[in-house]
Amino acid sequence: MKTGEFDLIDKIRRFAGTAEELQLGIGDDCSVISIPVNQELLTSTDLLLEGIHFRLDWTDAYRLGRKAVSVNLSDIAAMGGQPLCLYLGLGIPAGFNESSLNEFLAGFHAAMSDYGVCLAGGDTCGSEGSFTISVSVQGFCMAGQAVRRAGAAVGDDLWVSGTLGDSALALRQLQAGEVPADFLAERHFNPTARVRLGVELGQRKLATAMLDLSDGLLGDLGHILRASGCGARIEQQRLPLSREFQSALRADAKLMELAMNGGEDYELLFSAASDKKDEIEALSRELDLSLQRVGCMTDGGKLECIALDGEIFSPRATGFDHLLTRTGRTDD
Amino acid sequence: MKTGEFDLIDKIRRFAGTAEELQLGIGDDCSVISIPVNQELLTSTDLLLEGIHFRLDWTDAYRLGRKAVSVNLSDIAAMGGQPLCLYLGLGIPAGFNESSLNEFLAGFHAAMSDYGVCLAGGDTCGSEGSFTISVSVQGFCMAGQAVRRAGAAVGDDLWVSGTLGDSALALRQLQAGEVPADFLAERHFNPTARVRLGVELGQRKLATAMLDLSDGLLGDLGHILRASGCGARIEQQRLPLSREFQSALRADAKLMELAMNGGEDYELLFSAASDKKDEIEALSRELDLSLQRVGCMTDGGKLECIALDGEIFSPRATGFDHLLTRTGRTDD
Repeated sequence: MKTGEFDLIDKIRRFAGTAEELQLGIGDDCSVISIPVNQELLTSTDLLLEGIHFRLDWTDAYRLGRKAVSVNLSDIAAMGGQPLCLYLGLGIPAGFNESSLNEFLAGFHAAMSDYGVCLAGGDTCGSEGSFTISVSVQGFCMAGQAVRRAGAAVGDDLWVSGTLGDSALALRQLQAGEVPADFLAERHFNPTARVRLGVELGQRKLATAMLDLSDGLLGDLGHILRASGCGARIEQQRLPLSREFQSALRADAKLMELAMNGGEDYELLFSAASDKKDEIEALSRELDLSLQRVGCMTDGGKLECIALDGEIFSPRATGFDHLLTRTGRTDD
Repeated sequence: MKTGEFDLIDKIRRFAGTAEELQLGIGDDCSVISIPVNQELLTSTDLLLEGIHFRLDWTDAYRLGRKAVSVNLSDIAAMGGQPLCLYLGLGIPAGFNESSLNEFLAGFHAAMSDYGVCLAGGDTCGSEGSFTISVSVQGFCMAGQAVRRAGAAVGDDLWVSGTLGDSALALRQLQAGEVPADFLAERHFNPTARVRLGVELGQRKLATAMLDLSDGLLGDLGHILRASGCGARIEQQRLPLSREFQSALRADAKLMELAMNGGEDYELLFSAASDKKDEIEALSRELDLSLQRVGCMTDGGKLECIALDGEIFSPRATGFDHLLTRTGRTDD
């Protein structure tokens, strides 16, 4: 790559954007942000590493740039927050293709615009290893109203946005040397952070606990169970599955595993009091986004599943260990 | 490495600590922070990559853990801010030594304690490349009082804390296969963030512009010149040099280059009105930390240097390009 660090920083600075709360953005030692009165600050950080989280022979750099934004904003959505700004760290290998880098930045910028966030800082350096991306995000929510994992109560319904397993199915096909259908590929390479849904669920006080599904429904649900001290029952027949996923499932019933334990859905999983059902269904229509009741919170701390044939079993939540698994995000 | 992600997260969580402002720390999708009234939020982020920023055959993992904290907090110090919390991202190669990882975490924790900051979040994953560290930091300062790079005025004095060039000299010796003296090695592998100094300079409104020296005096001074629209004159005879550096300089006069352009000093460079000299010298005594006047801000936008022999020259600020330079931080 011929571009030096300062050229790259100039390029990034040109699309950084601004926000009323951002007193000082890229170009000093720190960003400076004024937090609006009665708001609390939300922060999350993600590493995306070549070979672990993405392969450049599978995805184009533009969608990788978009995804780097979306997966990070998804954490703000999961708290019911409004995202404000991002910080981008890039470690760039010596031989890295300059047009790939430009495409990555174009995708990153396009996603920033879609979500209405600005870039407030970052760090760029060479990398002796692979292409390295670190993204941090900051956002706000009303003081005391962040939706945590610990708020679910026995009897609450469990809801999921969108559809499950599409991303994991695409990855499974890629790993098998197949070409996923466009819809599935898009779900894997270009997920959508459910920011608007998160904000509405938070502001309308509909969700008692919430997180975003990055490691698989059962594994992530386990976090809510432990934090809230409840059990849960999931009904497989209620799992929201796309037409494309259902079609694959008809050919191979074992793929149900991907809807249960597949990673990178980036949908929101939330609990809500059972008397909020009508309000949630109204919100679903308002946002034109599927919200599906998949089960409920139970007492006793156990996770149970009702299979398609009505059998009740205790699923093994394989979840996803990002250290022990090194060949993709959904190996088990 | 046998430790899985969840064991590692548990280990990290045990030393995360707390702070009054931290409403929710590690273990949810985001941290939640209440910003004190009349304060502004400061944020910075750094990537530290094996082979680029550190070599594990040169440094022990404990000091690497300390340094990951210090270099990040140095950015908060450079704004005159009080650090609050860190976020740690780790990409860990499959064969990574478990005791090295534990030492890294022990060093990280020890430095957190020294600076009085807590850990509010992070991300851990495998790495197919090298050991990857991303650190973000958040801190506070009184609203409107962050010390930026843009505030220097013609006639202001230029000050530097501590001594210059020690870290670059240690690196030069390591690159030559030599073993640096303990003092120099410590300056390179275990720098100190000048947090207390930054806070005092900010609160007492002594510094008009400030940054931390990570890329070399002249390169970093260039940032203040461009932001403030001034020139500057530096007197080489005033540069604060350690006994160890002076001794090496007597043997090789060309090493003066390392005091001018060497990276990773992590000292504070700041401008101050000339009538603040006594107050700054009093602060130096109070903190038992050398503060040296090395030059002044001039009009015309040029950077001039007065050499030891009295000759005035326009130095080439080689600075440090983290993309084009790949074999260490101070190659030129």
